[in-house]
Amino acid sequence: MDRKEFRDLASPAQAREAIDSLSLEGGVERVSLADARGRVLTARLDAELDVPGFDRASLDGYALRARDTFGADEADPARLEVVGEVHAGEEPDADLEEGQAVEISTGAVMPAGADAMVPVERTDTEGSDVLVRTSVAPGDNVMFAGADVAAGERALGPGTRITPRDIGLLSALGIDEVPVRARPRVGIVSTGDELVRPGDDVNSARGEIYDVNSYTIAAGVEDAGGEAVLYPHAGDDREEMERVLREAARECDLVLSSGSTSASAVDVIYDVIEEGGELLLHGVAVKPGKPMLVGRLEDSAYVGLPGYPVSAMMVFRTFVAPAIRAAAGLPEPEAATLEGRMAVEERYGEGRLRLMPVGVVSDGDGETLVYPVDKGSGATTSLAEADGVVEVDPATDYLEAGESVTIRLFSPDVRPPTLLGVGEDDPTLNRLLDRLENPRYLSVGSRPALRRLREGVPDVAVVAGPIERESEVDADALGGWKREWGLLVPPGNPDDVSGIADLVDRDLRFVNRTTDSGLRASLGAAVADLAEERDVDRHEVVEAIDGFQVALRAHESPARKVIAGEADAGLGLAETADRLDLEFVPLGDQRVRVLANPDRVEKAGVRELERALESTLE
Amino acid sequence: MDRKEFRDLASPAQAREAIDSLSLEGGVERVSLADARGRVLTARLDAELDVPGFDRASLDGYALRARDTFGADEADPARLEVVGEVHAGEEPDADLEEGQAVEISTGAVMPAGADAMVPVERTDTEGSDVLVRTSVAPGDNVMFAGADVAAGERALGPGTRITPRDIGLLSALGIDEVPVRARPRVGIVSTGDELVRPGDDVNSARGEIYDVNSYTIAAGVEDAGGEAVLYPHAGDDREEMERVLREAARECDLVLSSGSTSASAVDVIYDVIEEGGELLLHGVAVKPGKPMLVGRLEDSAYVGLPGYPVSAMMVFRTFVAPAIRAAAGLPEPEAATLEGRMAVEERYGEGRLRLMPVGVVSDGDGETLVYPVDKGSGATTSLAEADGVVEVDPATDYLEAGESVTIRLFSPDVRPPTLLGVGEDDPTLNRLLDRLENPRYLSVGSRPALRRLREGVPDVAVVAGPIERESEVDADALGGWKREWGLLVPPGNPDDVSGIADLVDRDLRFVNRTTDSGLRASLGAAVADLAEERDVDRHEVVEAIDGFQVALRAHESPARKVIAGEADAGLGLAETADRLDLEFVPLGDQRVRVLANPDRVEKAGVRELERALESTLE
Repeated sequence: MDRKEFRDLASPAQAREAIDSLSLEGGVERVSLADARGRVLTARLDAELDVPGFDRASLDGYALRARDTFGADEADPARLEVVGEVHAGEEPDADLEEGQAVEISTGAVMPAGADAMVPVERTDTEGSDVLVRTSVAPGDNVMFAGADVAAGERALGPGTRITPRDIGLLSALGIDEVPVRARPRVGIVSTGDELVRPGDDVNSARGEIYDVNSYTIAAGVEDAGGEAVLYPHAGDDREEMERVLREAARECDLVLSSGSTSASAVDVIYDVIEEGGELLLHGVAVKPGKPMLVGRLEDSAYVGLPGYPVSAMMVFRTFVAPAIRAAAGLPEPEAATLEGRMAVEERYGEGRLRLMPVGVVSDGDGETLVYPVDKGSGATTSLAEADGVVEVDPATDYLEAGESVTIRLFSPDVRPPTLLGVGEDDPTLNRLLDRLENPRYLSVGSRPALRRLREGVPDVAVVAGPIERESEVDADALGGWKREWGLLVPPGNPDDVSGIADLVDRDLRFVNRTTDSGLRASLGAAVADLAEERDVDRHEVVEAIDGFQVALRAHESPARKVIAGEADAGLGLAETADRLDLEFVPLGDQRVRVLANPDRVEKAGVRELERALESTLE
Repeated sequence: MDRKEFRDLASPAQAREAIDSLSLEGGVERVSLADARGRVLTARLDAELDVPGFDRASLDGYALRARDTFGADEADPARLEVVGEVHAGEEPDADLEEGQAVEISTGAVMPAGADAMVPVERTDTEGSDVLVRTSVAPGDNVMFAGADVAAGERALGPGTRITPRDIGLLSALGIDEVPVRARPRVGIVSTGDELVRPGDDVNSARGEIYDVNSYTIAAGVEDAGGEAVLYPHAGDDREEMERVLREAARECDLVLSSGSTSASAVDVIYDVIEEGGELLLHGVAVKPGKPMLVGRLEDSAYVGLPGYPVSAMMVFRTFVAPAIRAAAGLPEPEAATLEGRMAVEERYGEGRLRLMPVGVVSDGDGETLVYPVDKGSGATTSLAEADGVVEVDPATDYLEAGESVTIRLFSPDVRPPTLLGVGEDDPTLNRLLDRLENPRYLSVGSRPALRRLREGVPDVAVVAGPIERESEVDADALGGWKREWGLLVPPGNPDDVSGIADLVDRDLRFVNRTTDSGLRASLGAAVADLAEERDVDRHEVVEAIDGFQVALRAHESPARKVIAGEADAGLGLAETADRLDLEFVPLGDQRVRVLANPDRVEKAGVRELERALESTLE
């Protein structure tokens, strides 16, 4: 194949240059004033008229000739003949002569001959005369034509991002349409036979998963000031992929494809780009995001993003979003960085720039702690648990705990969580969390929660069931509640399951939880009791339960296996059985405890949780 | 009239309470994922499925039983029979037995019987066998079902403002529609016979002006997360005003009217509100913004804003926008304040909270200087020249120069200008400014510019013509250019005007510029020369010119009077004549000079201007 070779990875700087060398700009469009907010002017707008367009009374009162009030005061008012009145929006019908006045409203046109006005509070009327109890100078209480904006004045410069106050200025000038930069149109093409758009059904047996990138990147494009265009999912079909890519290239300023760097798609992309454009770059020394493509397709710019959502978004944010913002004329958001120190050590050292998604949490002194968020390659949701990114230099082998780092927040709007909790997954807890302001909760299970609490990252750990070595954790108990655990079986309990003994003695398929879970710990204790009761080895009992090793991470997953008919009984909570309409075989109660990092008990979010605990429970 | 009396002004806190006592919330609506960005969730969303929904290969390679690779290494590979292949999006068709492997793609479903996978890089093929050159443990390179998100897990809590990363999480869960807070619908009703909507023509003779408030407040409403609904302009007609107010109240969560606190409109508003709702408050101890109204009309909240745009926007920002944001579920924008010190003294002392619009500028040391922006009551455009607001306590009589103040920026996006210039209005200057990044220029004329430069507020002053006492200003000359000035007359010069003498000797109507202008100074010098030439008093010459006292502020305004037929000749520039297709009678050249504050010559914006001057001119 006659293909351009990219033997070495490009540096991040080269990747930026390659993208900057492409034109993403969408040209100029005219928008109405009602749609102008946030848009960027392409040309200077000068005032085409004076504002106000006439000499204007600043108050309610009388228009007059200043010299007629000379020497007037409270005791010795000037008497003037009132020869007419003029309101805002009316043309004055009187020309003022010496000794005359015209009653005038705020905002009305000063009549010819008048050169000042006096507010009504400083006057009295007597028949058709007005007594003016103060003297005024020419120009007093009059706003002259053009005093606000004068014709020919520069009103707004090119590049101005239009805010409400600019809309005020444009309104004053009577401008109802402005030339602005068109938003760069960004076409989003997703590939991969396994992807299904949200809203449709996934078939897990076929390995289908929801398409995370399309809507996420679309939202990122809109955030950066672009207009996102979602193209129909192209699957892995070569012709369809080519057709969609070319259609997007014709209609957009930039085409983004995701998943197109996978082994199965990259050949097609290579061919399409080489045939209809030019490939500038393949592969960047950055992690995640190595297999990125940059090029042109027809008259459009093209960037191929990795398929893994975290990688795709990291590459998008780092390389693509700044180019879209530049094309849209928007500045890089300011104040979108935060300083903090590493809560834990982080090793690295692959010689590539690392874009490390991180979460942040305030410690007891209000200082910002930073911890890496990584649910492993392929995880689609890590970013939802992260607040921003720390860029780690290729030369950096590790970051020590306590080391200062700079976090680029995902947006200036990012609010670090008020509370960081880790631990057991629990329905009561979920309802408690709903009452807090901005909590973040990572359901890692009881044992990992205690380990993390010991490391000093989270504010609180939520643990359930018997925990070995728990006493080693130095923590403050904030409160807790009881939950009923047992076996979840199909409605009507068709197998007539009454306890663990049935799982051991009969041919029933069971689904367990992971050893991290408090439920699993309670089940382990119950199994040990049964073994002791039968005077056999615990291992023997475990081996006799079909599926004891099928350990699912989430509290509802065993129930869902039972519903799907893939198991006869699952480990779970009474509340889950109730919610999912399953039958429940009780095995016991366990206590769920909320433990706080002793340094954080005064932290606002921890106190908020404590109050919520007190007011809802027991 | 049986009217509720509000004898005392309410405090700002009482005004906030009154608004908070009204419900602006718009309820719940369901939006698609594509429209969810920036919206606020009303309910918790839990995962209804495991993500991934199956055990998933993390790499391209071979799925196998870990125990079959026990002891394998480079030198001594394990040989396995390849019994099939499975790609992403396919259902595996093979069950693995001991000694077998299945070729597998990244993201594909792990076949039954396999408990680990090995990446292709650690293998070789030999016929239908694969040689595995490493040993793996159960679970290696496999992402288990639910490892990313587990069914039943709390995904997003109520009150979450949806960002692109949240859209990623929702996509992964297959959720394509979410319940969000409806944006509060805010109806905007403008009153006043003198107002004309931008885009239509204003008749200045009738005192018409453009309606500044409607679009400006609409933009402010959208900024605060509301949905703005502009109602047709109601004029001052009582029935029409009542009809529009009631229509808006039926259709919206909040009705804002502007100008309705004027003497002519307030009675109607009072009646409508008292009849169809309740008035809670009239008048607040705040400047500007005193004549504010708060109440209910039918089921809608109602706030009456002052008519003056600056007052209306100050009241809107201070009292109304926070209530809209709260109803929309949006937090107050953070990082929207700035500390600075007063550049000049500011006197006050009316015993009301003052909302002082201010501009900011960096001094030579990068410190923020703050100066009040006030073009007088009735100015519509002051806010376009301001960056934010300083709240001055009622008890504060004056702010000293140098005193520290906190500025609430109009939005976190506000970029203080890179350069603050003041002085002459000039077409060449306007083009220069277009080349700078984010300049602010106040065309106050030459003389006021020198005064302001002396006071130390602006970075540069742009002056033209002969200036008395100029030498008193300590300034660095950055550069300058020449401009040709003279008389602007109608095309074809129908009156055959050839110079100033014609204005003195013949019956011609002239239009002058203000004494602040450099053109006026040059004209003054020419008039003095003529007087000397004729050996008469300068005053005599001036008196003989009809319209010498008609002094317009902007450089194009005299030309526009000539075009309108209201004058036979106007003072102006050759370039203006050219641009507006007038005939030009040259009277001389004058130099325009750009003078910099000596402490600011190193400031980036000043250097940018200097470079622009060097590269464009002479």
